[in-house]
Formats: sequence, C-alpha cells, structure tokens
Amino acid sequence: DPALKVFSLNSNPSLAQEIAENIGTELGKCTVTSFSDGEIQINIEESVRGCDVYVIQSTGEPVNQHIMELLIMIDALKRASARSINIVMPYYGYARQDRKARSREPITSKLVANLLETAGATRVIMLDLHAPQIQGFFDVPIDHLIGVPLLSDYFEEKNFDDVVIVSPDHGGVTRARKMADRLKAPIAIIDKRRPRPNVAEVMNIVGNIEGKTAILIDDIIDTAGTMTLAANALIENGAKDVYACCTHPVLSGPAIERIDNSKIKELVVTNTIPLKDEKLIDKITVLSVGQLISEAITRVHERKSISILFD
Amino acid sequence: DPALKVFSLNSNPSLAQEIAENIGTELGKCTVTSFSDGEIQINIEESVRGCDVYVIQSTGEPVNQHIMELLIMIDALKRASARSINIVMPYYGYARQDRKARSREPITSKLVANLLETAGATRVIMLDLHAPQIQGFFDVPIDHLIGVPLLSDYFEEKNFDDVVIVSPDHGGVTRARKMADRLKAPIAIIDKRRPRPNVAEVMNIVGNIEGKTAILIDDIIDTAGTMTLAANALIENGAKDVYACCTHPVLSGPAIERIDNSKIKELVVTNTIPLKDEKLIDKITVLSVGQLISEAITRVHERKSISILFD
Ligand SMILES: Nc1ncnc2c1ncn2[C@@H]1O[C@H](COP(=O)(O)O)[C@@H](O)[C@H]1O
Ligand SMILES: Nc1ncnc2c1ncn2[C@@H]1O[C@H](COP(=O)(O)O)[C@@H](O)[C@H]1O
Repeated sequence: DPALKVFSLNSNPSLAQEIAENIGTELGKCTVTSFSDGEIQINIEESVRGCDVYVIQSTGEPVNQHIMELLIMIDALKRASARSINIVMPYYGYARQDRKARSREPITSKLVANLLETAGATRVIMLDLHAPQIQGFFDVPIDHLIGVPLLSDYFEEKNFDDVVIVSPDHGGVTRARKMADRLKAPIAIIDKRRPRPNVAEVMNIVGNIEGKTAILIDDIIDTAGTMTLAANALIENGAKDVYACCTHPVLSGPAIERIDNSKIKELVVTNTIPLKDEKLIDKITVLSVGQLISEAITRVHERKSISILFD
Repeated sequence: DPALKVFSLNSNPSLAQEIAENIGTELGKCTVTSFSDGEIQINIEESVRGCDVYVIQSTGEPVNQHIMELLIMIDALKRASARSINIVMPYYGYARQDRKARSREPITSKLVANLLETAGATRVIMLDLHAPQIQGFFDVPIDHLIGVPLLSDYFEEKNFDDVVIVSPDHGGVTRARKMADRLKAPIAIIDKRRPRPNVAEVMNIVGNIEGKTAILIDDIIDTAGTMTLAANALIENGAKDVYACCTHPVLSGPAIERIDNSKIKELVVTNTIPLKDEKLIDKITVLSVGQLISEAITRVHERKSISILFD
C-alpha cells in the first residue's frame, strides 16, 4: 500500500501532533514560514512521491492566511507527485457565506471549494459543516464527520437528572434532535422573533424547560450573542441550570466577555479551532477531535466505510 | 457600448480614485470590510449587470488578505452578471515564486493565476511582472504595461551630464537596456559573485562608471540589500552620484533603514504599492502610474491596441 503521510500547517499544530501519534506515524517534515514581505514560504523536507498525504488545516482566524497556506501547500504537494492530497479541515471558514442572502453577494464557501480543487485537493475531510449543502460545492469526495457523539458522551457522563436539549435558533433543531436522541432527552427551541419592525426581539421558548438542566447546542459560537441571550432566557423562564456546547469555538470580538457574564454554567467546545490563551477561561472545557479524525483518516486510507463513526 | 465601471478594493484606494477621475467616472459603490472573526465581507452597492468591470487591486502586504479580497470580489461580480471582469493588478504578489528552484517548492505565481481564473477573472492588466513568463501562466488575456518610460522621463528632466544606467544583478540587464535606450546612455552591470564557497561575495562592476551619474534600476526593491550594496560599490568605484529607481517598492524589513544609510542620493519608485507613512523618507520620490493605467483601461475598453503606451 502507498505510504500515508500526515502534514501540519499552522492552524492546529497540537491537534495534528495528536492525530499523527494516534495513527502511529510522525508528522511530515515541512516548514511553513513567511518571507520578509509576508509572502508564505513552504518547504517540504521529505519526499512525498507516490504517497497518500493528509494535510491538517482549519481555516479559522487568520482565515485568509490559513486558506493561502493550504492552497500553496497543496500546490507544492501536487508538483512533488503526491498520489493523493487529502485535506483535513476540522473547521471550514467562510461556511456562513453559503448563499446569496442579498443581491450581489459572493458565495465564498463555494469559491473556497473551487480554489481547493483548482490547487489540487483530491479529498476533503470536514467536521460539522455549517450547512451540509457545502458538500455539494465540491466535485471531489467529501467525508463529513459530526461532533455530536463527542459532545453527547461528555454530557452523558455528568448523569444529569432531568435534561432538555435546546437549539438556540430555528436553524439548529436537527442538531439538537441528534443530541437528544443520544441522551434520550426531549428538545426545546428558542423561537426568537420580532413582533413588528423596529421592535425588540422576543425570546419565546418552545418546549418545556422548567426545573430542567438545559444543554444549548450549536455548530459555531462566534460573537456568542445568540448563545448567551438564549442561556439567560432559559434561566429567566425557570431552567435549573444552563450548559452550552458547540463544535467550532470561533469566539471573536466580545464572545469571551459575554460568556463570562452570562448564565452559562459551563461551555463545552472542541479543538477544531484552538483557543488562544486569553480565551481560555474557567467556564470553557475543550474536548479533542483527535481520536475521531485519526480513525477517519485510518479508515479512509484502508478504504473502509466511515459511517460507523457516526453511530 | 456596455458601461465601464471601476471598483477599488483595499490595496490602492488613492490610485483607484485617480484612475476613475482620469477616465471621467466615479468609483463603483462597494464596501469591503471584515466580519468580527476576520472573514471578508463584500457588498457591491450598485448594479453591474452587463457591465465591463475593472477592479483595481495590488497584492502587496498583507498579500494573502489582498488576494482573498480580490477573489471574493471576482466571485461576487461574476454572480452579479458582470459582462467582463478585468483585474488591474499594478503589483502582482508572489511573482518571485515562479519556478521550482528546489525540490518540492510550490509555484505560487502559477497557483495565483489559476485562482484568479477559477474565481472568474476574464482579463488581467499588470505592470512590470518580475518574470514576463508569468503571462503564460494565464489562459485569459494579459495586458502587460511597463514602468520604464515613466521612470526614464523623470530622470530625463534632470538633464544629467554623463549618465550610466546600472543593473544591480544579471537578471535585470534587459530592463537597464530599455532605460538606457530612452536616455541615450550606456549601461553597466553589478556582477556579484562568490569566488569560492563560504567566501564573501565580490561586487565586480562590468562597464565604465567613473565620474558618471549612475542610475540603478530594478523591478522590485524588497529588503533593499542588493540595491544598497550596489549603490555603495558604485560610489567606491568612482561614480559621481548614485540614483536608484524601481517600479514596485515592497520595502519590507530593514529596507528603509538601509536606503537611508546608503549612498543612494534619491530613490524613485511608483505607487503600484502605496508607501505607508513611516516609509516615506526624504530620499524617496513617488511617481504615479495612474495616467498609464487609465490610458490602458480606456484603450482596452475601446478595443484599441495598447502597444502605443510602450513607445
Ligand atoms: N464570518 C461571518 N460572521 C458573521 N456573519 C456572517 C459571516 N459570514 C457570513 N455571515 C452572514 O451570516 C448569514 C448566514 O448565517 P446563517 O443564517 O447562520 O447561515 C449570511 O447572511 C451572511 O451574510
Ligand atoms: N517574497 C519573497 N521574498 C524573498 N524571496 C522570495 C520571495 N518569494 C520567492 N522568493 C525566492 O526568490 C527566488 C526567486 O527570485 P529571483 O531569482 O529574483 O527571480 C526564489 O528562489 C524564491 O524562493
């Protein structure tokens, strides 16, 4: 069988290290630095000829830098005669720009898909895409992993008495349903709406949350406005405690302050986007997707179905 | 005739303004900002349906940000039914990564060409490409302008007595020859070489420079090492004065300090890359390529040959 090689770029070095260790290999030798003028310089320091290469790179902040690193790495691998170039993107940036919501908007998610294919990616492994439709933006095979089992298992161990899984908006109900199935719990939905134009939004709660431990789940927490407003509304309406979780902790702008000041007791996230030190507050627990991704890589490389990873 | 619209992104706002004024139009309405997490947000605020659009964007520092801005803008214009998407890149970043100098290097110049075409660019107008071969990396038409006339005209007005045009390395002799033709001057070459491995380079000068006013010319000045060493070697070998010029003032890292401390009397550059305030020292004169580019755009739009602009 052709050799499997794992390379890390600059977004998730410790996750990449964990993945390589799980697979029982070492990270491929490669330096990714910048010239004096900020142009990216990549040196791959071992042969990849005929190899199946897996490149670990999320496109979180600085997103444009991380995308260009990835594209240039793919170009270098292609010209170095890699047999396959498998991109492992734990977090897919620009996923929210997935449609023209208004006239003359770009569809940057589709653009990035095209760029990856143009550079030479032959497969992309992703986790909890903001919209599953983004899979269809690619013509190469996509392996789409989900974080719900990991997050659910964590809460299962807490053995809460009376749990309800809450979606913070209408868009996330399917995800909440998946978690509820695993935890054998009911669901509720925060049904935000604006009764009339120019009137403040009302946080209506659909479902019974009174006296229960509520677990809010979303795919991305960015500025944390939605999540913290939802948490506070749950407490005001009689929930006993509020936990929150998400796969992708973007946590930009006021996010950390909002979470710190909110009624959220604990926020559980994964390491698809590594948290900078200043974002690591007591309330936040980070779970690793390393095991999940290593198994996916191994199974893909051995041409085994990965659907088992979702059960 | 379909309407011509000029849009500016964030690299060269004042050059874009000058170009629009020369053409007798206003810049297209469009905001290019960032979401809280650093993802680029573009809103085109006027219809471009059926229009011939010209987008002004150099890909100088921050190069990756500027490339992504451009790609996303092209995507938005394409989806907004622009008739043609003409990219005006006064400075083409990553031009020096134009070949595999060592094993497993990327060819990022070619990658960027592919990315621009994938996004939907239908023509690219460029100025003094580091290697003219980069034109062949594109399948869409390229209009390649040159800065030598602009720089030569500036020096012509100085009416120096006894001038020699100097190429700071072997790669730039053709450019020096072009300037020498315009100024009816001889050329000289700095013939750097390392006599043996691990021995300091010797700055040998091929050509007669004694008592003359030397004008060094290059396409890019980046860290300014080559240029300032060349200038000092010229003075040590008897040149009367040394002037230097280039089209693209990258001026990264120690460049400004080196120029300030060098024997260069005046450095003449263009505004293909705008200089930040801290880089604007007394010695530097900036010429605008606005007139040249506006004429090129007008002629392209009117389907007239642009070769007249080089004579
Ligand atoms: N990075 C971003 N941060 C905040 N909003 C975004 C971002 N990217 C796209 N959007 C907007 O978010 C909306 C889509 O989000 P959603 O409705 O959750 O799928 C679109 O209207 C986008 O304009
Ligand atoms: N941004 C950059 N800064 C400095 N050197 C670069 C840069 N990009 C590419 N190079 C290197 O410059 C060399 C090409 O420069 P040149 O010989 O002038 O065409 C190649 O060996 C590249 O590895």
